[in-house]
Amino acid sequence: MTRTRHPPNDPEDFRAAGGLLDRRIFLAGALAAGALSSSAGAEPLTVAPWMKIPGSPFTPYGQPSRFEDKVVRVWANPPNAPGTGAARTPLHRLNGMITPNGLHFERSHSGIPDVDPDTHRLAIHGLVKRPLVFTMEMLARYPMESRIAFIECGGNGGSLYQKDPAQLNIQALHGLVSCAEWTGVKLSTLLDEAGVESTAKWILAEGADAAGMSRSVPLAKVMDDALIALYQNGERVRPSNGYPLRLLLPGYEGNTQVKWLRRIKVTEGPTMTKDETSKYTILSPDGKALQFVFPIEAKSVITQPSPGLTMKEPGLYEISGLAWSGYGKIAQVDVSADGGKTWAPAALQQPVLPMALTRFRIPWRWHGGPAVLQSRATDDSGYVQPTRSELIAKRGDRTIYHFNGITSWGVAESGEIKHVYA
Amino acid sequence: MTRTRHPPNDPEDFRAAGGLLDRRIFLAGALAAGALSSSAGAEPLTVAPWMKIPGSPFTPYGQPSRFEDKVVRVWANPPNAPGTGAARTPLHRLNGMITPNGLHFERSHSGIPDVDPDTHRLAIHGLVKRPLVFTMEMLARYPMESRIAFIECGGNGGSLYQKDPAQLNIQALHGLVSCAEWTGVKLSTLLDEAGVESTAKWILAEGADAAGMSRSVPLAKVMDDALIALYQNGERVRPSNGYPLRLLLPGYEGNTQVKWLRRIKVTEGPTMTKDETSKYTILSPDGKALQFVFPIEAKSVITQPSPGLTMKEPGLYEISGLAWSGYGKIAQVDVSADGGKTWAPAALQQPVLPMALTRFRIPWRWHGGPAVLQSRATDDSGYVQPTRSELIAKRGDRTIYHFNGITSWGVAESGEIKHVYA
Repeated sequence: MTRTRHPPNDPEDFRAAGGLLDRRIFLAGALAAGALSSSAGAEPLTVAPWMKIPGSPFTPYGQPSRFEDKVVRVWANPPNAPGTGAARTPLHRLNGMITPNGLHFERSHSGIPDVDPDTHRLAIHGLVKRPLVFTMEMLARYPMESRIAFIECGGNGGSLYQKDPAQLNIQALHGLVSCAEWTGVKLSTLLDEAGVESTAKWILAEGADAAGMSRSVPLAKVMDDALIALYQNGERVRPSNGYPLRLLLPGYEGNTQVKWLRRIKVTEGPTMTKDETSKYTILSPDGKALQFVFPIEAKSVITQPSPGLTMKEPGLYEISGLAWSGYGKIAQVDVSADGGKTWAPAALQQPVLPMALTRFRIPWRWHGGPAVLQSRATDDSGYVQPTRSELIAKRGDRTIYHFNGITSWGVAESGEIKHVYA
Repeated sequence: MTRTRHPPNDPEDFRAAGGLLDRRIFLAGALAAGALSSSAGAEPLTVAPWMKIPGSPFTPYGQPSRFEDKVVRVWANPPNAPGTGAARTPLHRLNGMITPNGLHFERSHSGIPDVDPDTHRLAIHGLVKRPLVFTMEMLARYPMESRIAFIECGGNGGSLYQKDPAQLNIQALHGLVSCAEWTGVKLSTLLDEAGVESTAKWILAEGADAAGMSRSVPLAKVMDDALIALYQNGERVRPSNGYPLRLLLPGYEGNTQVKWLRRIKVTEGPTMTKDETSKYTILSPDGKALQFVFPIEAKSVITQPSPGLTMKEPGLYEISGLAWSGYGKIAQVDVSADGGKTWAPAALQQPVLPMALTRFRIPWRWHGGPAVLQSRATDDSGYVQPTRSELIAKRGDRTIYHFNGITSWGVAESGEIKHVYA
């Protein structure tokens, strides 16, 4: 392996400058040089210690390998408020589109309540003909639906509004987004039973945590695709994600998808709760605050390689990442290895689902020189993820919310990867 | 609520006898009678104890609620062999199509080895031009693919070959099937690098457990869609499912999808390992053993209601279950409430993916009388799941493998649900 540049007449089919390759290149045996040759015929491996003794017995509920103990959520707390803040998903350690339940991000405003499902109730009241209160047992008899959906905190990526690139890894920068298969009852089914009055235009959703976290949501969205989620990746919703039930609003900022849901009040207008006036508003350059900015705009990040991961030597790598949009499906993801000068389309893992994380991948030959890796998502509405400069030119930098500009990873000759602005 | 039969001119749109309904029926407010009325206007709920104190803080790796401590795998062991047997997924407690990693079924032949990923190797040898040995780090640089796939043990449902219906729940009867999003490297990519000789027609896959579990697989299948799976629902494969890597053969019986994979030997014919001669063969009525019966035939089971779950009162319920086929996609699932006399098509949860679990659902009004619930899957090859009698007429009852006949749940007037033959 050398660090000399590839000659321009290289047989590899370059898709863009900086070593981005056609997906088929891997099939030509280009990586095998990194594998070890073995003597043919004879058994090529020694017998490891764990083959010489019986393994461990079954367990009722399994856990990850002890060798994966660094694959965990991380968080920061204000002093004296251990349950206030957000724990972030280690996106650089994961692959695929599903986030395992133990690593789904969580944002709490007063810790995780220990809700007893036998006494917990969900009430529907306000502008309805017949107010209703549901036990969890009764809810479980209703028709259910499943959908794979991402949830992203409105504040995810907020540090990219800062003047200088924060020297953090992707977990700290963008780890407030996760994706799961959610199963539950359509809220429209319950509202139809309660009988919504014609004057109703909004709802209030309130959680059963000590913060009484509550948000207003337009009725039209609720009647379209809101789910009262009881299951997360097959099992009951985790305590940190709202056990025994949460509101799922596909594509909306996470804060609106109220956890430990106890109450839906049907209203004429928004309720103006503390959580939508003092927070989750976007302060514009002219001093005006944008309120009720609900859907997450199309966004993407490269998860591998990314800061903290090792590039030991020049050669072939797969660039892999996640793209998502609160407005629909991801239509295309382009990747650049030269800071946005040239782009090549990445492969999208099927099935591509609306309001779900989409995994993208493209092979890359790192020649050993400096590189700047970027990804750019386009959704099926035609919206293209903006550069950081474009986003800030429009929105200013006086907010921490809804950052969806392009993220740049700078690769040094040493193989070190850093967050940069480019 | 009464137990009288619905009159035939009932406005409910019956899809089949025994109370199977059109999906839209729920929208007419038919279940709301079961909910509690509340006084309109005023806040309808009391403040629960968990709203009066701050909740618990963040955790690095989350766990289910303490109220869900019965949602676990169960297993049985031979004496003195704590790691030999199978731990079963609680299908009656889950919903959606994904199985959470902690509850994925596991079948082990000598316990779960404690494999160190830094010293573990995957070797490819035999009829190849260049034998190769891969570190886990090198494998991680290869192009990856994800797919949502079921894995079912070839022995799942084996007790339904017995003369009398075993009085067990669905977990004990059918709990050796699970579904996850698997991500890894196509085995064909690695074999292409090694250079398969033209005489090769099979492979041997060997695990690094103390049993040295090994199976032969046709090369054609391997080159088509075999995956060296490194990730399971986003995170690294669990120890009980093969950490740090397993073979994934979509649609094939689970035993062939070798866990803790250490070696792929390319061969002319099958190797005739102990695991494919003494086990995993189907003994026919004429005394001949069918060997190498790989794909799982189309099958379905109703997960809710099922034995052990409670039907407290007549009224509306959702019948929900899982269908799958090792030959492709599920095309249709029909449900009967009268032991197979009449059938109604269930709704299939989208996306329906090949070789993945498919959730089906249909509303059901239980009138309080005896009922026999059945489901029948049809896959996109046109194959229809047989009745138990049809299956045994063809295959006999001298085997425990590949049972895919229709399962029947008998509902008594008391609401008790039992496994029956019908």
